[in-house]
Amino acid sequence: MAISLSKTFLSITHQVFPSEKCRPVSFSGREPQLQRATSMGFATRSLRVPRVSSKTSGSLSSSIDELDKETREERRVADVWREIHGVDDWVGMLDPMDPLLRSELIRYGEMAQACYDAFDFDPFSKYCGSCRFTPRQFFDSLAMADHGYVVSRYIFATSNINLPNFFKKSRWPKVWSKSANWIGYVAVSNDEISKRLGRRDIVVAWRGTVTRLEWIADLMDFLKPISSNKIPCPDSTVKVESGFLDLYTDKDVNCRFCKLSAREQILTEVKRLLEIYQLEELSLTITGHSLGSALAILSAYDIVETGLNVLQDSRAVPVSVFSFSGPRVGNVRFKERMEVLGVKVLRVVNVHDIVPKSPGLFFNENVSPLLMKMAERLPWSYSHVGVELSLDHINSPFLKETGDLSCAHNLEALLHLLDGYHGKGHRFVLASGRDPALVNKASDFLKDHYLVPPYWRQYENKGMVSNEDGRWMQPERPKLDDHPEDTHRYLKQLGLASHH
Amino acid sequence: MAISLSKTFLSITHQVFPSEKCRPVSFSGREPQLQRATSMGFATRSLRVPRVSSKTSGSLSSSIDELDKETREERRVADVWREIHGVDDWVGMLDPMDPLLRSELIRYGEMAQACYDAFDFDPFSKYCGSCRFTPRQFFDSLAMADHGYVVSRYIFATSNINLPNFFKKSRWPKVWSKSANWIGYVAVSNDEISKRLGRRDIVVAWRGTVTRLEWIADLMDFLKPISSNKIPCPDSTVKVESGFLDLYTDKDVNCRFCKLSAREQILTEVKRLLEIYQLEELSLTITGHSLGSALAILSAYDIVETGLNVLQDSRAVPVSVFSFSGPRVGNVRFKERMEVLGVKVLRVVNVHDIVPKSPGLFFNENVSPLLMKMAERLPWSYSHVGVELSLDHINSPFLKETGDLSCAHNLEALLHLLDGYHGKGHRFVLASGRDPALVNKASDFLKDHYLVPPYWRQYENKGMVSNEDGRWMQPERPKLDDHPEDTHRYLKQLGLASHH
Repeated sequence: MAISLSKTFLSITHQVFPSEKCRPVSFSGREPQLQRATSMGFATRSLRVPRVSSKTSGSLSSSIDELDKETREERRVADVWREIHGVDDWVGMLDPMDPLLRSELIRYGEMAQACYDAFDFDPFSKYCGSCRFTPRQFFDSLAMADHGYVVSRYIFATSNINLPNFFKKSRWPKVWSKSANWIGYVAVSNDEISKRLGRRDIVVAWRGTVTRLEWIADLMDFLKPISSNKIPCPDSTVKVESGFLDLYTDKDVNCRFCKLSAREQILTEVKRLLEIYQLEELSLTITGHSLGSALAILSAYDIVETGLNVLQDSRAVPVSVFSFSGPRVGNVRFKERMEVLGVKVLRVVNVHDIVPKSPGLFFNENVSPLLMKMAERLPWSYSHVGVELSLDHINSPFLKETGDLSCAHNLEALLHLLDGYHGKGHRFVLASGRDPALVNKASDFLKDHYLVPPYWRQYENKGMVSNEDGRWMQPERPKLDDHPEDTHRYLKQLGLASHH
Repeated sequence: MAISLSKTFLSITHQVFPSEKCRPVSFSGREPQLQRATSMGFATRSLRVPRVSSKTSGSLSSSIDELDKETREERRVADVWREIHGVDDWVGMLDPMDPLLRSELIRYGEMAQACYDAFDFDPFSKYCGSCRFTPRQFFDSLAMADHGYVVSRYIFATSNINLPNFFKKSRWPKVWSKSANWIGYVAVSNDEISKRLGRRDIVVAWRGTVTRLEWIADLMDFLKPISSNKIPCPDSTVKVESGFLDLYTDKDVNCRFCKLSAREQILTEVKRLLEIYQLEELSLTITGHSLGSALAILSAYDIVETGLNVLQDSRAVPVSVFSFSGPRVGNVRFKERMEVLGVKVLRVVNVHDIVPKSPGLFFNENVSPLLMKMAERLPWSYSHVGVELSLDHINSPFLKETGDLSCAHNLEALLHLLDGYHGKGHRFVLASGRDPALVNKASDFLKDHYLVPPYWRQYENKGMVSNEDGRWMQPERPKLDDHPEDTHRYLKQLGLASHH
């Protein structure tokens, strides 16, 4: 399976790029069918290699074309997914940018974005802090049925930790939960998409913070041994930011959603799914944006450190993280431990975003090795893990200059940048034709002349509906399940049941 | 037709009030069908005398009951509409509050509110400053089909006048009109509703300002003779606030919507409709909230001053104004001239609202007659016209204390106060069961425990829709007509054609 993709890629690029066909695309539509979205959904299909071409660069016109059927057959995700997931540490795949990797990154980014789109963060909603949809309706409600995944479990975290600006609470007394916040989901690819992917893909997607960046200031900038929160790390010098660690491991016995920690929820669910699909080819893909990236990295580490990804027949399921706009998570020892364990992390960032520069603004992987060596034991000496793919929003002709820091941190904007990225120094040309209007869903980043309102994504009447008596009210939502019945069995198997 | 309603009313109230039936009503619904509203619409039917009762007062429970069929037959709008429209200056109808007058006031208030609900004030909309709907779809789109009116013409005003905070302009260059704002409509009752009303009712509704109150500061606080803007007033000491007058009479020859002034649009349309329905019983009802009230009073004056309301058979069509939260419009001479002309004005205000105290904070109808006499010639000596019905939001147990001045000025809140008003010192009890949730459509005024989000009225995705290619965009709207073809004929008849 482990084809050397870097070589494959080179031959492919030669095939794809010379045969350029230019078709200018106006932003406002009437162009070839590149994606379909309905109602509140924002799906893109991107399981093919798009043929990319460009004529003008600084200008606003861009060129998009779909892959001819024959070309699409040439390289399939099913054949190269291990490379896409980092088996070779993405060597040679980032510059020039591998088209399949790009479309897969966008696909996973959209699964991270789904956490925002489904999150109820309206403080005047009874369900503030919850997910708007049931797991079963999740992807359908977001018009992402084409993604071909099924949510198997939601993950909740307790807000009783020291990250005040991360959690969303209703302003109202009578709410779905006083201390829980929905923080992500576990999903599994269905049979059809698994066939196209070449394996059964288990995805964990972690929600980040909604719009504001205050939570960065809340990070205590304090590294603590990962083992101090009962994650079985053999090396006590392996440390991570204590806020991330607490968020991952804390629980609240009085809350039906948080009586298990996010960690316990995720480990039991992954164990359950690996048991179900143990006879198939499998992958574990963990994604998240912003703070969600920190949780993605931490949980990926945890899964491999605990050996959870090793099946009964001793096969190790590859664990990869596609991180978007993520902060640093731990110290150099943590980074090294990740490498030893073989957890693959690809971090997509916008160079103008301050979040990936936090924490560890002064002592990080960029200072001289000698200084870093000296600073290594300090609690504020952080190091990024994995491989970085850095993009620059200045390169997109669709985006305007702005002093708003949250724009550079916006996930939709990052996916837009990905879509236009073909390598350092290459012109910005949208590859999939992913709708740039999505950038403004929750930001004010698109140039004004595209006539896309800033922050346009909103629900009709804030979800108020008129009931049978003509009275306007917030409808009740179906109750969310807390934890599957068999969770305890898996907790036991994981040696975690004693805490309950 | 001119039954003395004050006497009728007294006998009715004795019939209605003693037979109280108490039914506590929970706010959240499951109560008798009192109104119906769908989607973005907020209609109430209120052409009946509701039976009203109350048990508790300071508490939040209130009592609502529908009129028994027999009682409903007792007093019909068709029989007493002249009294409701002020033929006797509403003597004896306001305290205790006449139930039919109350429900009619709410009905006209909703027609004024429709101007806000239909107005596109999103600066990121291509159609900012316009009406969201075509005249034909107007009431249906607002779920107000039950009101039984048909819009016959929209009114536009030019923003090239000295009221910068009144007009809404798109932030974008390519817009429906550079200088026009939609400012109201003319509507006519259909056959069915006309039968119930006892006459064909022509309504003119003027839009006020959206949410903010800055426009008050823009008023130049300068009275000028009404005749100086070519309104044929025989007395040059009759003066009105110059900003209102300019808004009513100014035009912009370069704009297809504003090449006629609001005045010319309204006069020609009223003339046209009176011609069509000249053989029927007729009424002219003019309504408006806030600045819209000033235009309502000014246009009502104009219609009577010019004799437009006198039919060929010499019958004078009664002209009445139902004003909501309106500022003062002119000086004492203007008030006196209104009385001479027989223009009836009922002004509904919230005592905590600053707008009805403007302009003329220092010299107005409340100072001593001697002082007023002295100040009369000063340009800042204002007087309210007509009869005032003052309500106090402190009396509603649904509303919270707030320092937000715009709450006391909010039209939906005022209609809510009307619905609970039964006379000075009477307990606040909702008469029609009009949904209090409507109060928070565009304000933050309801007590939090009702769980109604503040400012909840909004369009899904700010009106963005996904087109056939899956791209999100602002849909085109049908072009609005400017002026009917026969406008010029009526301009001629009115002696206004020479200006064109």
